[in-house]
Amino acid sequence: VNPPTATYAPALERDVQSELDARGVGIDRVGVRGLRYPIAVACRDESPQTVASTWELTVSLPASQRGTHMSRFVEALDEWAPKPLDSATLLSLLSELRDRLDGREAHASVSFTMFLERPAPVSGMTSKLGLECRLVAQRDDEAGAATLGVRVPVTSLCPCSKEISDYGAHSQRGYVTIEARAEPSARLCFEDLVDVAEASGSAPIYPLLKRVDERYVTMQAYDTPAFVEDVVRTASLALMDDRRVAAFVVEAENEESIHDHAAVATVRWERGV
Amino acid sequence: VNPPTATYAPALERDVQSELDARGVGIDRVGVRGLRYPIAVACRDESPQTVASTWELTVSLPASQRGTHMSRFVEALDEWAPKPLDSATLLSLLSELRDRLDGREAHASVSFTMFLERPAPVSGMTSKLGLECRLVAQRDDEAGAATLGVRVPVTSLCPCSKEISDYGAHSQRGYVTIEARAEPSARLCFEDLVDVAEASGSAPIYPLLKRVDERYVTMQAYDTPAFVEDVVRTASLALMDDRRVAAFVVEAENEESIHDHAAVATVRWERGV
Amino acid sequence: VNPPTATYAPALERDVQSELDARGVGIDRVGVRGLRYPIAVACRDESPQTVASTWELTVSLPASQRGTHMSRFVEALDEWAPKPLDSATLLSLLSELRDRLDGREAHASVSFTMFLERPAPVSGMTSKLGLECRLVAQRDDEAGAATLGVRVPVTSLCPCSKEISDYGAHSQRGYVTIEARAEPSARLCFEDLVDVAEASGSAPIYPLLKRVDERYVTMQAYDTPAFVEDVVRTASLALMDDRRVAAFVVEAENEESIHDHAAVATVRWERGV
Amino acid sequence: VNPPTATYAPALERDVQSELDARGVGIDRVGVRGLRYPIAVACRDESPQTVASTWELTVSLPASQRGTHMSRFVEALDEWAPKPLDSATLLSLLSELRDRLDGREAHASVSFTMFLERPAPVSGMTSKLGLECRLVAQRDDEAGAATLGVRVPVTSLCPCSKEISDYGAHSQRGYVTIEARAEPSARLCFEDLVDVAEASGSAPIYPLLKRVDERYVTMQAYDTPAFVEDVVRTASLALMDDRRVAAFVVEAENEESIHDHAAVATVRWERGV
Repeated sequence: VNPPTATYAPALERDVQSELDARGVGIDRVGVRGLRYPIAVACRDESPQTVASTWELTVSLPASQRGTHMSRFVEALDEWAPKPLDSATLLSLLSELRDRLDGREAHASVSFTMFLERPAPVSGMTSKLGLECRLVAQRDDEAGAATLGVRVPVTSLCPCSKEISDYGAHSQRGYVTIEARAEPSARLCFEDLVDVAEASGSAPIYPLLKRVDERYVTMQAYDTPAFVEDVVRTASLALMDDRRVAAFVVEAENEESIHDHAAVATVRWERGV
Repeated sequence: VNPPTATYAPALERDVQSELDARGVGIDRVGVRGLRYPIAVACRDESPQTVASTWELTVSLPASQRGTHMSRFVEALDEWAPKPLDSATLLSLLSELRDRLDGREAHASVSFTMFLERPAPVSGMTSKLGLECRLVAQRDDEAGAATLGVRVPVTSLCPCSKEISDYGAHSQRGYVTIEARAEPSARLCFEDLVDVAEASGSAPIYPLLKRVDERYVTMQAYDTPAFVEDVVRTASLALMDDRRVAAFVVEAENEESIHDHAAVATVRWERGV
Repeated sequence: VNPPTATYAPALERDVQSELDARGVGIDRVGVRGLRYPIAVACRDESPQTVASTWELTVSLPASQRGTHMSRFVEALDEWAPKPLDSATLLSLLSELRDRLDGREAHASVSFTMFLERPAPVSGMTSKLGLECRLVAQRDDEAGAATLGVRVPVTSLCPCSKEISDYGAHSQRGYVTIEARAEPSARLCFEDLVDVAEASGSAPIYPLLKRVDERYVTMQAYDTPAFVEDVVRTASLALMDDRRVAAFVVEAENEESIHDHAAVATVRWERGV
Repeated sequence: VNPPTATYAPALERDVQSELDARGVGIDRVGVRGLRYPIAVACRDESPQTVASTWELTVSLPASQRGTHMSRFVEALDEWAPKPLDSATLLSLLSELRDRLDGREAHASVSFTMFLERPAPVSGMTSKLGLECRLVAQRDDEAGAATLGVRVPVTSLCPCSKEISDYGAHSQRGYVTIEARAEPSARLCFEDLVDVAEASGSAPIYPLLKRVDERYVTMQAYDTPAFVEDVVRTASLALMDDRRVAAFVVEAENEESIHDHAAVATVRWERGV
């Protein structure tokens, strides 16, 4: 790789992004996507975890302005990255983005894997389970709101298969996805949603199971058959009961072991609606 | 693989899905996802294309019913697969699903790759470009609506890089995604949206370019620099001008050649709103 | 999109690819990857299927030559695409690529989804299952060889879980991948490998199963427990018994329902070695 | 989720995995794949980084034994996870796996994203770039060997496009992948390979570039055009010159901005061969 042959000189070139745009089309969201950054994430019971996160950061752009300044998203993220991420810090980052970029609205979506310790149910041997988490937020002149999301693997066992067969019942890995918005003053953690999801399947999932544990989860799943419909209803009732939760979407997806496609179910809910 | 040891006999087991559910939670969507099926797709100017499609098919489920009948989605799809797919046939499939499954609402999303012939701009040599297409529809007691989507690769060249540099300008592959809903009586084809998308970047993309063609598209891109903001505005104006279009979302995503992340912009629009 | 401002004129520019290269480093493979093209695939019992395929096409490049001519790969593929693809046509395409590009060796890898009809085991109701297929070939001055590959979903049920539990046994979706090279004069089809793979799990997988069928496959899987080790051994023995098969690699991957990771096993074998 | 109705009692069930297998088929590799775990990674100049890693861990299994013990892979990984990962610790983990599982051979492949600080070339403003890294190792009775791999994004600018056009030249994001085995006593770091890869394209890539930096990299790329063939040759010469390197595979993949497919080139090399 060669350095440029031309010496850089602070030329008088136009700042193209700052030009006026005459086409009259406002832009809902403009920014960066797929930007990976190391951050710290606030946890419920432990000190913050360092994670590799993937970001989408955007602002709205008025019809009159040609372009946004893409580098400012990265600058802002680099400055905020050391602060442990939660809804409050993300909304503060969005406030700053609105200022730096003169956008009326700012949006963020950040995804990462959080690891939680999982003691096996009988042997008690521990291992760490990686869980997909997501924090989404938006802010305009008046208000801001954040949504926490988790995607949690569970075992699911088919109630129909159990009922119609003389023995056995097909089971499979399923994923329970919960996206929840907290009430304004409430503090909700990713781990709270993980707890709800894990309790909604036929059995939780563990990276490490010894033979005594495998016996336990096999029989637990057979004793707790659940359709995707059952999974989302169980999770919904738990979330409705939690007064910190203002709204949620819960989805169950079973990677059916008797098919090469998935079964899915979704419930959307908002408190007081 | 052994046959089951127990001879099948039509046992008097319960139909678990048809049971009543007392938990009082209605389900917005339940069904199948990731189901792959060979179908025929209606084209603008040519006879239908055979494509490998991937489906999500769901219905709503009342609070009182425990489960839907998953196999009926596949049965319905197998019956409808031979009919060339367009908005009208997809809405008819949804009507039938509502009947078969007693759901108030039915939804479908189907994705596939359509191949279109692309003559190179100077040599005229032809090759086929694969384009991601998607058809999404929903229907309830009163109405149904379908949305066509395409994801189209384009070349984009950065106006800022061109302006501030003594020579050269970075370019990259970008993707223009358009999701559009047609006015009730209008006929809109995937190819119509592809045309809009390809005309919105710095240059179209072709699988086969000879040297004379590569010269052409290199200079065409340099002469037509476009930010993601420019791309979505150009596409938006073309779609607003097309009286067949009732609403759209257009997104541009540039796989920046000077970064390892993307630049994105989105415009949402509805006629008369 | 504007046309270039400069009129194209056949300039006397250098053909950069054809230049000599003084660095003394020969290149093993150079070409195109991720090129999607519609092709026809030869089947065992039926007329050819039209599929959307994804290609990697490369040649070797001598140390003395700076670059290959990328457009010729696409030209060659466009010409060969109408011929039904099998090992023989792919090797002929490679012969032509060697000629067009003066490469000593040429390689190809092409992947696609083939759909096979699957009657349910009791009801006999039919549906189509999409199967990932791959054809890989290489040719040099002296010889050529092709390898057929399939990735087939199966149900797998854990023998250990069945043995240690009073009732039930965890099952999951697994994938059996077979890559096989045929003896020089033998004709081997993708469907032959699919048959071997489907017979190696605890039960085959079907897109459409009615209640009588679900009972059947549930009990069949419980009666045929199989570790990934059992799956690859069963498949290996069937492939060794088939005198058309000269060499193979078989892999089983189970998407464990009690874990969020997979269990895998692999056997490599060559006749007479 | 209910607990199992049967109280667990240490039943006298068979240990199915330890059974003899009469089929006479030895298994090359059996174990776990896609297991995610938080680990620390040894760095060249800094203290270890905490990363989310994804593992494949396998052993060979003799023809006479029915199955391996899957839980022992996870147990071993959980114990080794706190030690900073490098070639030596990975080979020690494999030695232990051979002992625990009575396998003649043991293999490991671990992938993760490492973040490196990248000061912009003119402004000097820093940001962090995520780089895909991989460590692969195997060990049998006699010896062990490890391979380090990195996948590094670069800007590439097409020499042909530059030559044949009156102005401009298409550029795109490319990825340089290097897998290298060190000489027995040499210490090679991921960052060493990243340095080679970044110096082989038309310009390095940075998450954060201000306008002065964008001008610099635009002109640097135009002044340093490189085909995929050039990229792999430049990287190969640098690796051959490094006496610590015993063998390597280097691959360049350009996400062509004028096509929807990639250009690729590969060189394989072993010292003294």
